Amino acid sequence: MNEGVLAVDLGGTNLRMAAVADDGAILHLTRRSTPKSVTPVELISLAGEMADECIAKIGSETTLLGIAFAAPAPSARNSEGILTRLPNIPTLNGMNLKAALRDRFSFPVTVENDAIAAAIGEHWMGASKDADTSIIITLGTGVGGGIIIDGEPYRGVDGTAGEIGHVCVIPDGHPCGCGSRGCVEQYASATAIVRMARENGLDFSTSRDVYNAFQGGDERAAIVFRQMGSYLGIVLAGLVNTLNPDMIVIAGGASGAWDAFIGPLKDEIHLRAFHAPSTRVKIARTQLGDNAGILGAARSAILNAESLTVV
Amino acid sequence: MNEGVLAVDLGGTNLRMAAVADDGAILHLTRRSTPKSVTPVELISLAGEMADECIAKIGSETTLLGIAFAAPAPSARNSEGILTRLPNIPTLNGMNLKAALRDRFSFPVTVENDAIAAAIGEHWMGASKDADTSIIITLGTGVGGGIIIDGEPYRGVDGTAGEIGHVCVIPDGHPCGCGSRGCVEQYASATAIVRMARENGLDFSTSRDVYNAFQGGDERAAIVFRQMGSYLGIVLAGLVNTLNPDMIVIAGGASGAWDAFIGPLKDEIHLRAFHAPSTRVKIARTQLGDNAGILGAARSAILNAESLTVV
Repeated sequence: MNEGVLAVDLGGTNLRMAAVADDGAILHLTRRSTPKSVTPVELISLAGEMADECIAKIGSETTLLGIAFAAPAPSARNSEGILTRLPNIPTLNGMNLKAALRDRFSFPVTVENDAIAAAIGEHWMGASKDADTSIIITLGTGVGGGIIIDGEPYRGVDGTAGEIGHVCVIPDGHPCGCGSRGCVEQYASATAIVRMARENGLDFSTSRDVYNAFQGGDERAAIVFRQMGSYLGIVLAGLVNTLNPDMIVIAGGASGAWDAFIGPLKDEIHLRAFHAPSTRVKIARTQLGDNAGILGAARSAILNAESLTVV
Repeated sequence: MNEGVLAVDLGGTNLRMAAVADDGAILHLTRRSTPKSVTPVELISLAGEMADECIAKIGSETTLLGIAFAAPAPSARNSEGILTRLPNIPTLNGMNLKAALRDRFSFPVTVENDAIAAAIGEHWMGASKDADTSIIITLGTGVGGGIIIDGEPYRGVDGTAGEIGHVCVIPDGHPCGCGSRGCVEQYASATAIVRMARENGLDFSTSRDVYNAFQGGDERAAIVFRQMGSYLGIVLAGLVNTLNPDMIVIAGGASGAWDAFIGPLKDEIHLRAFHAPSTRVKIARTQLGDNAGILGAARSAILNAESLTVV
């Protein structure tokens, strides 16, 4: 008898669910568009439908031990599982995701912040597999962060640690949705790339378009990515001095523009961080891509199930 | 029979040594001026003379288990004990402090970075005694940092973690001795306070003088401390978002100007950090003052002696 879990990655654009075996194999993966203005009831109904599909596909030879949700909310870092501050899915603000999942599913329920899930995933199966202490930065609509110390996710006292996207890089910089100004999220997210491109006279609607322009030789697009790499590098240099990690993994959609920003990013780290930790740290690209969060959520659910079994 | 250790705080101005009992009581403390351009040989000779004084004073009823040095060098964070990058005692650059101490003393030798030692000291006996996860910031000639996670000093992969003074707060700011620009050390150290005062037309030679002017009602001095508090607060807000600690302890000579900078510092944390971690974190003033480093070094030596005994 094999064992596995259901793992869900809740994003502003897509809702993805996979049945994942305890060795990390994805047994079945299904995807829906996240409905516009999705309500909590609709979300649970959709998740139930997707779970039924996964269960039917994997058949009866795999026992499911739990379900885990990776959600783009800082509050998904705490043990309560109440979602708050979801700028891209505001209709779910205040939802008690953990309680709602418990009502619908008969499995143990785990809720993780999406960036922490990605950090766990990359450490389990991906780029930071051999790194004891690593940091993941996810460049998507926002900038997320997750920290692994000595092989374990670092959560902080209230479970809110890792909000690296909201480290300030320009004190009087661009206003941020978090209430501060000049957060690195305002210079290194996919959203920021589009805004900075517009400030440079390029009117595109996605960071992918800006990257295509860069690949086509557009110097204004190149400047945008150089700025983005520099600002992100300044913040990462501070983390290198503060945490002296083995590795920093860069993930999320905008990490696809790697060759456009990685040079200036590494330059800032080497310029600004001390010699020993800046020589130590490897800057790596995600190996799991879109599946980092789903695999990390799966890993959390598996570990939770094991700890329940031990108790 | 009581047990204790010798602990030394090596500073640019003073060399202080104490015999410390294993319960943290300071049995005897002695101090010398750090000789101008002190050589490694002179340092060890002076330490030997101070150790002889301590040993004579405490008498034979206390067994000494080891000696620990807290040194103002990032490299004192690593296990080698070779001092590098001591801007204030450059004549000791390259000294293998650990080996030299082993040659002179018959005790086990511990070398700690001074800010990590202060963090250990405050967690053992001082302000952060009841905090599992805390950060110390030392405001002296430079800005040092030390991190305690789950009660243990966090050292990073190479032992260089905690260099919070070299987190950037203004990307194109004042050049820093570390090779970067705009490090918070350039805006929050005692040295920086004197420089910023001069930029505001106040010609003083110590940060204490600037503080005295503040207390006398000088508005230019008040501006300097407001700037200092804001810049330090911006960096601490980033650490609050990243590490979600219980407490931040502010120590070092310039922390004496507490009432002049703490308001703007806290304002920046509350403005810039997320609600949950900024509500959680207590901002506390050192309780051990000048003795934080010496007590932390003592604690390290005691723990090292215990681990040697167990082995």
